[in-house]
Amino acid sequence: MCRPHNEIVHRIVVIGSGFGGLFATRALKRAPVAVTLIAATNHHLFQPLLYQVATGILSSGEIAPPTREVLRRQANATVVQGEVTGLDAGARTLAVLAPDGSAQTVPYDSLIVAGGMVTSYFGNARFERYAHGMKSIDDALRLRSQIFGAFEMAEWTADPQRRAAWLTFAIVGAGPTGVELAGQIGELAHRSLTKEFRNFSPAEARILLFDGGPRILPTFPERLSAKAARALERLGVELHLSTLVADLEETAITVTGPDGERRTVTAMTRIWAAGVRAAPLADIVAQATGAAADRLGRLAVAEDCSLPGHPEIFVVGDMMALKDLPGLAEVAMQTGRHAARVIAARLAGDERPKPFRYRDLGTMAAVSRTSAVAAFGNRGFSGRIGWLAWLVVHLAFLTGFKNRFTTVVHWAITFIGNAREERAFWS
Amino acid sequence: MCRPHNEIVHRIVVIGSGFGGLFATRALKRAPVAVTLIAATNHHLFQPLLYQVATGILSSGEIAPPTREVLRRQANATVVQGEVTGLDAGARTLAVLAPDGSAQTVPYDSLIVAGGMVTSYFGNARFERYAHGMKSIDDALRLRSQIFGAFEMAEWTADPQRRAAWLTFAIVGAGPTGVELAGQIGELAHRSLTKEFRNFSPAEARILLFDGGPRILPTFPERLSAKAARALERLGVELHLSTLVADLEETAITVTGPDGERRTVTAMTRIWAAGVRAAPLADIVAQATGAAADRLGRLAVAEDCSLPGHPEIFVVGDMMALKDLPGLAEVAMQTGRHAARVIAARLAGDERPKPFRYRDLGTMAAVSRTSAVAAFGNRGFSGRIGWLAWLVVHLAFLTGFKNRFTTVVHWAITFIGNAREERAFWS
Repeated sequence: MCRPHNEIVHRIVVIGSGFGGLFATRALKRAPVAVTLIAATNHHLFQPLLYQVATGILSSGEIAPPTREVLRRQANATVVQGEVTGLDAGARTLAVLAPDGSAQTVPYDSLIVAGGMVTSYFGNARFERYAHGMKSIDDALRLRSQIFGAFEMAEWTADPQRRAAWLTFAIVGAGPTGVELAGQIGELAHRSLTKEFRNFSPAEARILLFDGGPRILPTFPERLSAKAARALERLGVELHLSTLVADLEETAITVTGPDGERRTVTAMTRIWAAGVRAAPLADIVAQATGAAADRLGRLAVAEDCSLPGHPEIFVVGDMMALKDLPGLAEVAMQTGRHAARVIAARLAGDERPKPFRYRDLGTMAAVSRTSAVAAFGNRGFSGRIGWLAWLVVHLAFLTGFKNRFTTVVHWAITFIGNAREERAFWS
Repeated sequence: MCRPHNEIVHRIVVIGSGFGGLFATRALKRAPVAVTLIAATNHHLFQPLLYQVATGILSSGEIAPPTREVLRRQANATVVQGEVTGLDAGARTLAVLAPDGSAQTVPYDSLIVAGGMVTSYFGNARFERYAHGMKSIDDALRLRSQIFGAFEMAEWTADPQRRAAWLTFAIVGAGPTGVELAGQIGELAHRSLTKEFRNFSPAEARILLFDGGPRILPTFPERLSAKAARALERLGVELHLSTLVADLEETAITVTGPDGERRTVTAMTRIWAAGVRAAPLADIVAQATGAAADRLGRLAVAEDCSLPGHPEIFVVGDMMALKDLPGLAEVAMQTGRHAARVIAARLAGDERPKPFRYRDLGTMAAVSRTSAVAAFGNRGFSGRIGWLAWLVVHLAFLTGFKNRFTTVVHWAITFIGNAREERAFWS
């Protein structure tokens, strides 16, 4: 370090190791600052591929690289595993709790909040209790045990009704996560598991996808939604649109269809991909700073992603409410990077306003083994071409982290060989 | 099937999906029988590589292929996930409990028992409570969280004493599992994690390996034990031999050394690799058949691996007591295959006695990234040559199950690139 000994280094604390927090930290690599990244888990999470862990394609390590390994060459960055439990915006300190229960106070000069979203059950305790969420590695592994365990139970039972119950998979929410899960469970039932059972055919499985809206993938152009719907139907997925969940139980789901009629379906696997809200950290920040939250708990920020009245605090990624920007990895990366640049510019004496401008790089969802939809501005792709676009983008992105050979091999095994290698489960 | 409709097919039940059960089942592929393999987990377990899951090298799926995928092309085999809770040797039936708590009675004509071993804490509840076992995927994943979590806590704490406690890893038992774990934690501390922390050097970690006997790897020739001991010491592992564990606590281990003195070491990670005993299934079989059990609970069998007085029941693998044969994967495979052949021969009218003869293919333990010991009869190899032998044997074996490209890639990443990719953990 060629810095004078007594120079006070600007301390930046980043909360969260998702796309927003990680890209903010990386963008500060050459800045004359000390960055501390605080996150509750020890890993980044490549959330768009979480459904592949839940369905036995990828291992947890393949979508969750250790944060400190990703940042090990960035000398000005320190990674701390802990949960932020308090913020004193006047004193500029955070209260942080370690996994062993011990607490620390961490001071900052600038703060970047990137806490992301958690599953929202709309405050319904029965929904939370009786449906699997899909936001963390832990969620995905529990769901994986549930899905493969359901097929095990179907092989075990001799009672056709019980077997049908175990072979019914109800998914609530037809956004990308719900669609991708439905598609992959369809692939399991119709392709990957076909030769593995003796007492039933996995193709008997019913996969029900429920959504309150009139079409799947509502953020995509209508034409692509329609294509994705047909691809799902070819995999045996039943679409129940304009349909609301009325109740969930330990063994069943009750819905209200477009005709207003209530119907109960026995289903041993119920998956909740219907809603998210800002992580509890957003409440802590709102209370400490007076920041306004929208109905999902996201914090309203100024044009440069900082909090009004607190130019030293930035909120980025899914936790941020700015101009109706969607909750996409790409938005998180770009806003994380933007906040870092605003801070670096200020330290260099440049105080001009820097409004964030989103560069739309498109959005995509994989529907089946060889079919995906991809929307880039006005252009849309589907089927095999969409899938190739999906593959290229995801490979490019994963290799940005490091060479992910094992991921490529697992994809080849799954997409060409039809096998699912990652599905060991235990009690 | 060209079999007449009313022919009664001989029903063979195999209990256990480890090496013994799986190889017994496979050896019956062409026999005119119906095989039902019952196991409590959904996967086989390549137990010799369990330490690589615990230390972040391999994913769980890589050492635990789904049993029904391994057997999917064997039309005469049915796989059932369940736990055997009772045996009626007169009626020739088993009581089996499914993961959902429902029970079934499964009849057999021949029975092959391959239930394996569980961790034995010698009946000491404090040992069980305060030390990690290392027998299942679940054990390995919990230990992985503990090991990588300990390094996280060392980064977090500012107190040198607490840091030292988090960086102390106590391993009880210097057989292959204890030695391989100690070696890989040494690799983590001195090679893989070196650049990842800012507040301490991972090389400060203390790795203590305790054993009651006078040397490590007691089943290997003395020369190889000495070589392995030197390789461990080069990795910073402290060997405490002729040393007995007196007590375990939540944060410490107390041992009695060769001089009879008691010493307590503060260690946040305590691993138990000191003893195994037959799984509870052995007790069920002993009670139902009057079979004799040795002090590890293993069942004494006749020369052909059948139970005396019950020629239709075979016990194979680690759960079997026969001529002091060691608890090795190779013994389990060979005895499993042997029991299958005895049954098939009987069905073909051949009732001649068929004593089991063990073909000793050697035994090996990997000490570090590039060093292993391998004993083949009178010949022994160590260092790089031993490691090459280890690699060739394990690759050959794994590819026997299926193409395990991802395993090879993960090994390359670990052994050449020094990285550990599989270490995402959660609370």
